[in-house]
Amino acid sequence: MNRSVLTVGDLSADEIGDVLDRAQDSKRQGRREGAQLAGKTALLIFQKPSLRTRVSFELAVTNLGGRALYLSPPEVGLGERESPEDVGGVAGRFCDLIICRTFDQNNLDRLAASSGVPVVNALSDWEHPCQALADVLTIREHGGTSGRTVTYVGDGNNVARSLAVAAAGEGMHVRIASPLGYELDAESVAAASRRADMSGGSVSTMSDPVEAVHGADVVYTDTWTSMGQELEAKRRLEAFTGYQVDARLVGSASPGASVMHCLPAHRGEEITDDVLDGPQSVVLDQAENRLHAQQALLAWMFE
Amino acid sequence: MNRSVLTVGDLSADEIGDVLDRAQDSKRQGRREGAQLAGKTALLIFQKPSLRTRVSFELAVTNLGGRALYLSPPEVGLGERESPEDVGGVAGRFCDLIICRTFDQNNLDRLAASSGVPVVNALSDWEHPCQALADVLTIREHGGTSGRTVTYVGDGNNVARSLAVAAAGEGMHVRIASPLGYELDAESVAAASRRADMSGGSVSTMSDPVEAVHGADVVYTDTWTSMGQELEAKRRLEAFTGYQVDARLVGSASPGASVMHCLPAHRGEEITDDVLDGPQSVVLDQAENRLHAQQALLAWMFE
Amino acid sequence: MNRSVLTVGDLSADEIGDVLDRAQDSKRQGRREGAQLAGKTALLIFQKPSLRTRVSFELAVTNLGGRALYLSPPEVGLGERESPEDVGGVAGRFCDLIICRTFDQNNLDRLAASSGVPVVNALSDWEHPCQALADVLTIREHGGTSGRTVTYVGDGNNVARSLAVAAAGEGMHVRIASPLGYELDAESVAAASRRADMSGGSVSTMSDPVEAVHGADVVYTDTWTSMGQELEAKRRLEAFTGYQVDARLVGSASPGASVMHCLPAHRGEEITDDVLDGPQSVVLDQAENRLHAQQALLAWMFE
Repeated sequence: MNRSVLTVGDLSADEIGDVLDRAQDSKRQGRREGAQLAGKTALLIFQKPSLRTRVSFELAVTNLGGRALYLSPPEVGLGERESPEDVGGVAGRFCDLIICRTFDQNNLDRLAASSGVPVVNALSDWEHPCQALADVLTIREHGGTSGRTVTYVGDGNNVARSLAVAAAGEGMHVRIASPLGYELDAESVAAASRRADMSGGSVSTMSDPVEAVHGADVVYTDTWTSMGQELEAKRRLEAFTGYQVDARLVGSASPGASVMHCLPAHRGEEITDDVLDGPQSVVLDQAENRLHAQQALLAWMFE
Repeated sequence: MNRSVLTVGDLSADEIGDVLDRAQDSKRQGRREGAQLAGKTALLIFQKPSLRTRVSFELAVTNLGGRALYLSPPEVGLGERESPEDVGGVAGRFCDLIICRTFDQNNLDRLAASSGVPVVNALSDWEHPCQALADVLTIREHGGTSGRTVTYVGDGNNVARSLAVAAAGEGMHVRIASPLGYELDAESVAAASRRADMSGGSVSTMSDPVEAVHGADVVYTDTWTSMGQELEAKRRLEAFTGYQVDARLVGSASPGASVMHCLPAHRGEEITDDVLDGPQSVVLDQAENRLHAQQALLAWMFE
Repeated sequence: MNRSVLTVGDLSADEIGDVLDRAQDSKRQGRREGAQLAGKTALLIFQKPSLRTRVSFELAVTNLGGRALYLSPPEVGLGERESPEDVGGVAGRFCDLIICRTFDQNNLDRLAASSGVPVVNALSDWEHPCQALADVLTIREHGGTSGRTVTYVGDGNNVARSLAVAAAGEGMHVRIASPLGYELDAESVAAASRRADMSGGSVSTMSDPVEAVHGADVVYTDTWTSMGQELEAKRRLEAFTGYQVDARLVGSASPGASVMHCLPAHRGEEITDDVLDGPQSVVLDQAENRLHAQQALLAWMFE
């Protein structure tokens, strides 16, 4: 198969279900997937630093029998030293798979168009589909997805966008609470809603975090200032006042609700220490599931 | 064998022929070389960022059964954090092969002298021998070498120097067109000419790119501003006016002439988009051949 | 075993002896250890650049059958992009071993406490235990340890601290000569002395390098300005006047005394070229022994 995964929308809800079944299955049985990447090489082209994403992808690739070759930000100069088309054209001659973290979703499209090999989005300004797969996998493990409610509190960013589509496709009720000016765009909400219509879930957006979290089964947040937005940090800190996920806010969720965060966290900003480190936090399972979800995705792509 | 390849001149024309025969053979048959590097470790010591060179060398080393360990510019500080002799002495204790990209050819000599293991030049200010091997391999595949004409248009730099010697050794007629002040040095021209005398080829230099390209079978260019020359960029842009490889210039070459570029390209400077992306361009074959040429070279060195 | 090695003191003198016996044994026989790390992954989390440490650890891990995944300084942002606890918690989900080079010993404690996997100190501001293992291994090979004298001339730093404890535990007489203000702290001297009391060795500190080197079997020095201390360089150069290890100083040691340096050297500062490159220098054996000592340590830890 030569299919890229640049957004959650590149996978149907059924396909996501299959990938996650597979991930759960191999994780539960403590066994590795087969050798779907034997003799194959994955290039990891990263424009931003990474801990979880890089480690989990390198492990996934090598667990599947492949070679992973990591290229750090200054080594590639995607769009600076060389155009995405030239990087893609060359990469396609050397590798069987490109895993790319970039500031600009457009670079992914251009790599996919020029390389002739599958490209996987390992975080862009627009989406974070592999994070969403790991997120939904984690929710499955902690009480299940269908018919339950996940509330995302904070910036309507890449993580929120991918999560909304993926969770809606699994039949979840997705609520997103963002301050004015930081809402998830209408088109993304519509895309998630279409998935919800098929699955029996729902999608709603609002500005009041307390209302959004009320009775939720999962409370999710992400940093208010993503990599590359450092100049806006002060303005963002002000805009997000009242959106902190603290014990009081989590208290209004369903008892035993899971708390999620894709990390790295700005502790004391979008989330408090006691919540992040508390008994309801499943952030380490969520991080670990990056590996299981991505391994299942790659196995499925290359089978 | 403990022989370093720091310049094209470190290999005889016959040896280059053998290496390229081997590369063509294994590429055609789609098979890997043997395990000539089994149990061996290659250190990649790079002072400049790299896409093609690093990826192709890591793949070549691991295809041959070896381990590749990449050290990025800040990690080694060759000549800054530590003298080349100290780096070489230590590296020789840990590895069986050093693959080095450096600003200064002298560093290669010093690494080779101090390490006691073979050193391969993966680009220096003076030469780019592995690029030249890939270049000649590409010309072989696109019409052959002996008796045909390759014209290099532009800066008489490391790439031009290595290409001239390697192509002349294969019996090609080598023409180099450079503006005043950017010509290939006389000693390098003489070295290439000596090879041409043996092979039935020839080497000529001139300043007029149109005259140089006239009837040529291969038109080759490279960036006018290499890494480390950014401060001279403006002056160079002026000096190279008229040396752009565009459709008009290529039109004066032999019909169906190949267009080559070692990449990364500064599109719109030394070459136009339509030419680089056009049907006569073989730049992606050329990039891919880095792998085949280097793999054959390493297999030959360690057999 | 889930035990971290953050300081030399984390290993008893007997345990160090066992590890070094093992290292000597496998080095002499030119054989590799077994596959103690088969199926395991080591994360190398480095806050400072590294040649010897990184290469020797990557080789040790892969020699033992494990996977080594190197994370360079900007990729982790230990304590900047993310707290050591969050890095540790996540790393513990992905790997079986953390090898960390950090400015702050405290980061090691926090990684060890949060990750649930063994952490090995690959250089901190406070200790360099794996260097000390390699140092003592080297002294064993060049005349033996017990009853012999090692003199450290220079900064009472991490290298001196680890060396003092490890060498004292092997029954050596340890002398440390440092200028006023750069002495090894009293607590570390006391810790080394306790080991010496058990082993029949001794520990003494003084300010006169000539007195310290007199009759010594090993003369050891390290840079006066470690990574991160560049701003103090001028003040340090003045303070260490007279502490240079030159031919005259080495001449007052025992005939045939070994000269050691953990590298990188600031040639012409703490040591002269003729001594570093001279016949008494064992610095390359010392560098190579990083591999043998660390490989034995990891094999021992994971058996």
